[in-house]
Amino acid sequence: MKTRQWLLADHPRGRPLKDSDFTLVETEIADEPGPGQALAKVLWLGFDPAQKGWAENVADYVAPMKIGDVMRGSGIVRIVKSNTPRLKEGQLYAGLTGWTEWLITDGAGFEPVHPDLPPTAMLSVLGTTGLTAWCGLFKLGQPKPGDTVVVSGAAGATGSTVGQLAKVAGARAVGIAGGEEKCRWLVEEAGYDAAIDYKRENVRGRLKELCPRGIDVVFDNVGGSILNDMLGEIATGARVVICGGISRYETGTMPAGPENYFNLVFRRASMHGFIVLDWAAEFPAIRKRLAALVNEGKLAFRIDEQHGFENTPRTLMRLFTGENRGKQVLKVAD
Amino acid sequence: MKTRQWLLADHPRGRPLKDSDFTLVETEIADEPGPGQALAKVLWLGFDPAQKGWAENVADYVAPMKIGDVMRGSGIVRIVKSNTPRLKEGQLYAGLTGWTEWLITDGAGFEPVHPDLPPTAMLSVLGTTGLTAWCGLFKLGQPKPGDTVVVSGAAGATGSTVGQLAKVAGARAVGIAGGEEKCRWLVEEAGYDAAIDYKRENVRGRLKELCPRGIDVVFDNVGGSILNDMLGEIATGARVVICGGISRYETGTMPAGPENYFNLVFRRASMHGFIVLDWAAEFPAIRKRLAALVNEGKLAFRIDEQHGFENTPRTLMRLFTGENRGKQVLKVAD
Repeated sequence: MKTRQWLLADHPRGRPLKDSDFTLVETEIADEPGPGQALAKVLWLGFDPAQKGWAENVADYVAPMKIGDVMRGSGIVRIVKSNTPRLKEGQLYAGLTGWTEWLITDGAGFEPVHPDLPPTAMLSVLGTTGLTAWCGLFKLGQPKPGDTVVVSGAAGATGSTVGQLAKVAGARAVGIAGGEEKCRWLVEEAGYDAAIDYKRENVRGRLKELCPRGIDVVFDNVGGSILNDMLGEIATGARVVICGGISRYETGTMPAGPENYFNLVFRRASMHGFIVLDWAAEFPAIRKRLAALVNEGKLAFRIDEQHGFENTPRTLMRLFTGENRGKQVLKVAD
Repeated sequence: MKTRQWLLADHPRGRPLKDSDFTLVETEIADEPGPGQALAKVLWLGFDPAQKGWAENVADYVAPMKIGDVMRGSGIVRIVKSNTPRLKEGQLYAGLTGWTEWLITDGAGFEPVHPDLPPTAMLSVLGTTGLTAWCGLFKLGQPKPGDTVVVSGAAGATGSTVGQLAKVAGARAVGIAGGEEKCRWLVEEAGYDAAIDYKRENVRGRLKELCPRGIDVVFDNVGGSILNDMLGEIATGARVVICGGISRYETGTMPAGPENYFNLVFRRASMHGFIVLDWAAEFPAIRKRLAALVNEGKLAFRIDEQHGFENTPRTLMRLFTGENRGKQVLKVAD
């Protein structure tokens, strides 16, 4: 049978993504799954800034991507035909599908979607997004009740989850985002105590006002000058969690390193990087906690759903233009 | 009685030290110590890059320094007359004397010099220098046998101690220093396995050669491009200890922040700042271990002794020009 796929056509190293980085092809896959395999139809694709790093082929914590590979990415599938007990026909699963409409899989790495939540929750609050927020915040940031947690890229899928988890843990949450609408959403819907609009406001000055005793936990998705401003305002013993660096992706040039890193000395503070997959063994238990928080109404999430497989690369690009509102997904089929 | 003192005349903020930052004055102090006090004669002064930060008055982990204050610094004194049981007449003590030839003190913060080592050991390997090396390396860097430890500013008093302590702990030690003579000294005298001359060699390239499995512990005294190069070569799980940033002091402009900080993410690594005084309660126990290592011949140290109280500011400046060889001290009186 035939399926459409998006292949990687160029490594977008040190520059923004372009349409020509990906090529749409129609290719042939087996009509029937072999022994131990299943035929899966992709219903949604999920998008994450890390995908640009994969395409650049500089993120060496995952296997390299070569020109001509199906672009790597997560998705939700329905199993159409199964020769493996791991995947039940008619059921929905989440996993690394790649940018394809159909695939043959042995089910490795696929998880059934949560029965009580919409399927796309597995791409957002129960997926890498939510797990990243949980692990980065609780394993490294370790907020205590009364701590002030500041999150950059706070209106993104991970950032908005971090703020709410910080609130559940009894901390104060301050978010940094671009634009009035996002900032309003942070405070009114996502439970943040305060928001800073980096496009209109002086970030350093506002941090001083909003965090008079300093920042106990920094959760950075952005890098660049925003990370530097946050480092300038850390409290004694602060934990700085480096989750992402979207400012590294937006422009052709690498943003300057944070010259305020030396404040780690004056504040006896620490900065931590992490790869969430290192805690994969704990994902089932963490997913249960996240699902419970959603069901208790303590963890809201929003999905930005685009449509049409032909729009796949453009949908990824929305993450880097600030267009997306909440977790970016693409509906590929009903 | 009269004593000469060096007073702070200007805050050397964001620029190198100048002669005019300090003023030599002759001032009157009491001839006789009061009750609970002692009259002390300064024999040596010790110098540390942190003193520039104190004079700049930006290092807010210590009390601010005002124009006209006696410049803060460590020294070794002989007690000439004592009205306190804490300080014995004729004995030598180390403590914060300030830049003065004589002082009246109640003995707070003064420690007797070690009986088996030269008095200046209390300003170097048994002083803040050695304690900083010990605490930064073992409490934060935590080298394991077989780890590779890379130290910048390795020929400095702290750096040369770190390398030797790393060796004692079973790790490999690679030092970065400026100039052939310093690099030769690191390998031939200070027990480093290898040295990189940043003035002649490509630091990043040499790190790749010397640390093919990556750097497990970075101990940075320098900042700037050398820190950035080390961050580029860290191993998975690396600990980056920020001890100093002498490159911040050498030029009028703040060096760029380390843009390779994001490698902390790919390497699941961490970066730590510290103020050694936070571990003051442990200093007596750590000093015993350091003294034992010196006596066992496992911990060499060298003293760069200058002479004459009138040369005090110039002696501090030697730390920032790369002139000093080992711990910088000044002999003030016999």
